[in-house]
Amino acid sequence: MSGARGAILRAALDLFMRYGFSKTTIADIARDAEMSPANLYRFFKNKQAIGLAVVELYIQESDAGAAALLADPASTEEDRLRRLITYYVTFTVERIRATPKLVELAEMMIDASEGVARADAHLESEIQVLASIIQAGVDKGEFAVADPAIAARAVHNATKFFLAPFAIARHGIDRVEEDLAITLDLICAGLRCRD
Amino acid sequence: MSGARGAILRAALDLFMRYGFSKTTIADIARDAEMSPANLYRFFKNKQAIGLAVVELYIQESDAGAAALLADPASTEEDRLRRLITYYVTFTVERIRATPKLVELAEMMIDASEGVARADAHLESEIQVLASIIQAGVDKGEFAVADPAIAARAVHNATKFFLAPFAIARHGIDRVEEDLAITLDLICAGLRCRD
Repeated sequence: MSGARGAILRAALDLFMRYGFSKTTIADIARDAEMSPANLYRFFKNKQAIGLAVVELYIQESDAGAAALLADPASTEEDRLRRLITYYVTFTVERIRATPKLVELAEMMIDASEGVARADAHLESEIQVLASIIQAGVDKGEFAVADPAIAARAVHNATKFFLAPFAIARHGIDRVEEDLAITLDLICAGLRCRD
Repeated sequence: MSGARGAILRAALDLFMRYGFSKTTIADIARDAEMSPANLYRFFKNKQAIGLAVVELYIQESDAGAAALLADPASTEEDRLRRLITYYVTFTVERIRATPKLVELAEMMIDASEGVARADAHLESEIQVLASIIQAGVDKGEFAVADPAIAARAVHNATKFFLAPFAIARHGIDRVEEDLAITLDLICAGLRCRD
């Protein structure tokens, strides 16, 4: 991130992490980005737009990590599926653990129609990736599901609680990893099962 | 519900449904319950205590319905499991659909330590019931899980998104029933599967 836009987003992220989205003002962000509020408004129409741009950086970082993970060889498609979902959840858990106030960004996103659309698009892209892994598992004889697209949606639903920042925070963050592991055991048994 | 306490809870529920928990005041509740605020405070120490008492009525109603359902004969334990989870989810979906502002009561509950403790206790009781159904399924040879208690926790995790009012509201309430059904298909395949 370079230039004024980068400076705004860096200042905003730092403030959101320390004080939370709701308590941060445009004036705070402009001050820390060393520009006037009037200049800041040339780049972002309001605080929500800045919040969504910060979330977008997280989404891009998460997606890049997921792409790298998918490029790795995996012994089985089940292993690949487990690692991918665990990666997504761990990505969020680690960030919330380090800076709990980040949950406010997720709340903000849900309150903005633009944010809901972006979140939905990202969830759909996660489901697409799951479907391709499940299809590969079916092709290799690992999984026995009739419809990989529906199975992908079911897997996503069954792990969705652990994918939502507000839900993770409320579940009790220290139990998330263990609870995810036993849930993945059940899900993967379901994918392997021939009726 | 009879007497002053009942009148307070009826007035509060009606106001929470129409205007939401956050916009309702103690003065509103006292007025609709036809008593002075001072008299109301003899029964509840604050609005949150009233909110938790209203939630408790919902929990009792839900538990009574679940108990009735469990008393019914079921062709299989899988059928019993699916009906129970679908009942819990439908109970919440129907109430949120009828009165969307009820979600605020769930939010309030999560913000109160007493509410979190009550919610956790209820989730644990749901897991206990699931464990007893899974154990019965193992005894009948329907299910093939090694540890019914762990499997129950995994099933609960995998449906937890659909059990939380705030999550249901955010998932898109009209997709909940279909998404729950395909998720239960996967979960039940997992319970039946012998590795």
